[in-house]
Amino acid sequence: MKMGKLARDVAIIGAGISHFGQFPDKQNPDLWVEAFLDCVKNVDKGIDVKKDVDGGLYFGNFTADLFTGQGHLGPMLADLVGLTPKGATRFEGACASSGLAFRQAVVAVASGVADVVCVGGVEKMTALPTAGVTEALAAAADVVYEARVGATFPGLYANVASAHFNKYGTTSEDLFRVAIKNHENGKLNPKAQMPMTITDIMNQKIEKVKKSGGEVPNWKTDFDFLKSSSNPVIAYPLRLFDCSLITDGAACLFLAAASVAKKFTDTPILVAGTGQGSSSLSLHNRDTFTSFIAAKTAADQAYKMANAKPKDIKVAEVHDCFTIAELVAMEDLGFAQAGKAAEMVKNGETKRDGTIPINTDGGLKSKGHPVGATGAAQVVEIYKQLKGIADKRQVKGNPEVGLAHNLGGSGGTCVVHVFKRK
Amino acid sequence: MKMGKLARDVAIIGAGISHFGQFPDKQNPDLWVEAFLDCVKNVDKGIDVKKDVDGGLYFGNFTADLFTGQGHLGPMLADLVGLTPKGATRFEGACASSGLAFRQAVVAVASGVADVVCVGGVEKMTALPTAGVTEALAAAADVVYEARVGATFPGLYANVASAHFNKYGTTSEDLFRVAIKNHENGKLNPKAQMPMTITDIMNQKIEKVKKSGGEVPNWKTDFDFLKSSSNPVIAYPLRLFDCSLITDGAACLFLAAASVAKKFTDTPILVAGTGQGSSSLSLHNRDTFTSFIAAKTAADQAYKMANAKPKDIKVAEVHDCFTIAELVAMEDLGFAQAGKAAEMVKNGETKRDGTIPINTDGGLKSKGHPVGATGAAQVVEIYKQLKGIADKRQVKGNPEVGLAHNLGGSGGTCVVHVFKRK
Repeated sequence: MKMGKLARDVAIIGAGISHFGQFPDKQNPDLWVEAFLDCVKNVDKGIDVKKDVDGGLYFGNFTADLFTGQGHLGPMLADLVGLTPKGATRFEGACASSGLAFRQAVVAVASGVADVVCVGGVEKMTALPTAGVTEALAAAADVVYEARVGATFPGLYANVASAHFNKYGTTSEDLFRVAIKNHENGKLNPKAQMPMTITDIMNQKIEKVKKSGGEVPNWKTDFDFLKSSSNPVIAYPLRLFDCSLITDGAACLFLAAASVAKKFTDTPILVAGTGQGSSSLSLHNRDTFTSFIAAKTAADQAYKMANAKPKDIKVAEVHDCFTIAELVAMEDLGFAQAGKAAEMVKNGETKRDGTIPINTDGGLKSKGHPVGATGAAQVVEIYKQLKGIADKRQVKGNPEVGLAHNLGGSGGTCVVHVFKRK
Repeated sequence: MKMGKLARDVAIIGAGISHFGQFPDKQNPDLWVEAFLDCVKNVDKGIDVKKDVDGGLYFGNFTADLFTGQGHLGPMLADLVGLTPKGATRFEGACASSGLAFRQAVVAVASGVADVVCVGGVEKMTALPTAGVTEALAAAADVVYEARVGATFPGLYANVASAHFNKYGTTSEDLFRVAIKNHENGKLNPKAQMPMTITDIMNQKIEKVKKSGGEVPNWKTDFDFLKSSSNPVIAYPLRLFDCSLITDGAACLFLAAASVAKKFTDTPILVAGTGQGSSSLSLHNRDTFTSFIAAKTAADQAYKMANAKPKDIKVAEVHDCFTIAELVAMEDLGFAQAGKAAEMVKNGETKRDGTIPINTDGGLKSKGHPVGATGAAQVVEIYKQLKGIADKRQVKGNPEVGLAHNLGGSGGTCVVHVFKRK
């Protein structure tokens, strides 16, 4: 057997997702069961969970430990959906946690230990106040060298943005175009946390000001909103609308050996390539701030295994935890040359009708970012796009090849997958 | 390919371990690097980590999040040992965290994504005071149904012990014999946290009392110590010497495809079987307290894959987080019939010169229990025993088949592996 090639093919046979948002009455178990039931419902020919899912659960969660005080989530969540006493494993790689779970689930089916497995991710974030969330998230950074000296994730990505501005002349307007595009997509996603365009948000604010009798802002285009007090600086140069959301949510998929996938659907989606990379946790150890070696490493592996090139990708989910991260991802994935991603976005190439539609579900910016669920949720969207069941946000032209890019921390972990409709 | 069989064979080619104990001046990175360097040193024909370890790091840690405030350990620890930018994945399944990491590393090599991988586990526990440790550990129980109503791990295992006493007539003396045996073994392990017998501990206490001029206890045998005030009840019927230790420590192994293993050692140890099971987290959901369905499930899978039976096992590491857990493990693994493990221990069958030596390294009781490192540390011992390099604690008769049993929480997760010398 040649290293870097899976011993047998693996396919996705079902995908589901919970509503994303702030749900005071829902905890991790509630969110997870909602996603799981949505997934079961979406298996075309049905699935008998107890009988068919022989490989148990592969599960991503960043830190229910810090968010809710509950560790050891794997068996708890497996038990809720009838998978006990099968194996249940939790994976943690910060915001790439369920990307890691997905990759290891693929590897498990390929290895022969199981024919069918369940993959998921969940994060309940809004039980804490925002300052508590920021502190818990900081556990994904280097606590000694970064968190303890005051760095937060907006701060770390602000450094990335400043470096990109400095090196390539990227601007705040370039970043804002990513947010505008993702909110346009998210408006068409009924599960999204903020399903509205930036223009919708502006109009909402104008209505509110009018009602209160205040001075109505003179916003003519989205860009007038960009530097307004309604879009304050969070960590310069990043403003509020450069940041993804704090979200409760979950996602779920079933994977099967390609040899048995047709039992469950006539149109399984092949996991054509999988890749994973890592990097020092802290930015100060890196050679560059404008590219993530973990992402490049993961992408190289995934493209190679899938025998695909960046130009073959017809729809992609990339990890836009901050708008700058989407630009860097496009460059790391080879969609754009270094420093050229902003131009592609400006030209509309990453819109739903562009050459490489990105974050058609609204991305982390508009759909939301329940950190441990994000990697799995990205794959749910690619599955739907490649099957042609993405409803109003469906990319035209029946895309056959898609990609998901899930980043943890400030690039310490990255997982990339390439998918093909056979 | 037949489900439940690995696509290719996987072997251990090196193993190392840090000192176990309470180290105020060592954090997770220090402990991990100590174990890693010990492992590199122990690869018979040497290993070029950067060149040979193509699959990166599979890593177990329960909750550095709660113990130290640091999540996202995978890439941080990979970076320290030269594995960046290769993939680095953290696994969490409470005290079975590195058992899970080991299993997935085996699966990864079997799948073909890598030829050689590094596996490890670490836990820094003693940065918190004991009450803080107990609270952090409670995150492995069901927080809503157990932790919030006052249950701690000694309390949960006390329930297991009481049920076992009630159903089978097991006694406090039966439990204490497990501790006596494990401390006898641990005395021969230079890396153990408490390398001394119960008799040594008694004598130490007697010396101390003599020096202070107090009344010298009239202890004639270990059993006089059992119900003394020096061995107080922690959670009835469990006493201090029924409980494993609070430990800082790490362990490390290298795995390779069997086809390339001989490059690194003439005596690789084959991973003949791997199994994993789960259960409801909380005891109140179980059919029985005297057996763990997760363990039985994992053992069934591992025995089947290895084409082995309990009587084939000639040396075993089982998860003695409490003395009662060792008895239950022996019964779940089929070494003893239900309710008969205590008799085997009494007859000396689990001593180093018995029919099935158990916890030859001292177990969690004497060697120590850095929770996230324990699963990997158990495999380190079996590797040494099967290779015949376990020094003073080497089991006679060149054992060819060994087993490791790693349990998470109160049985919510279990991983079992069977190993063979080829």
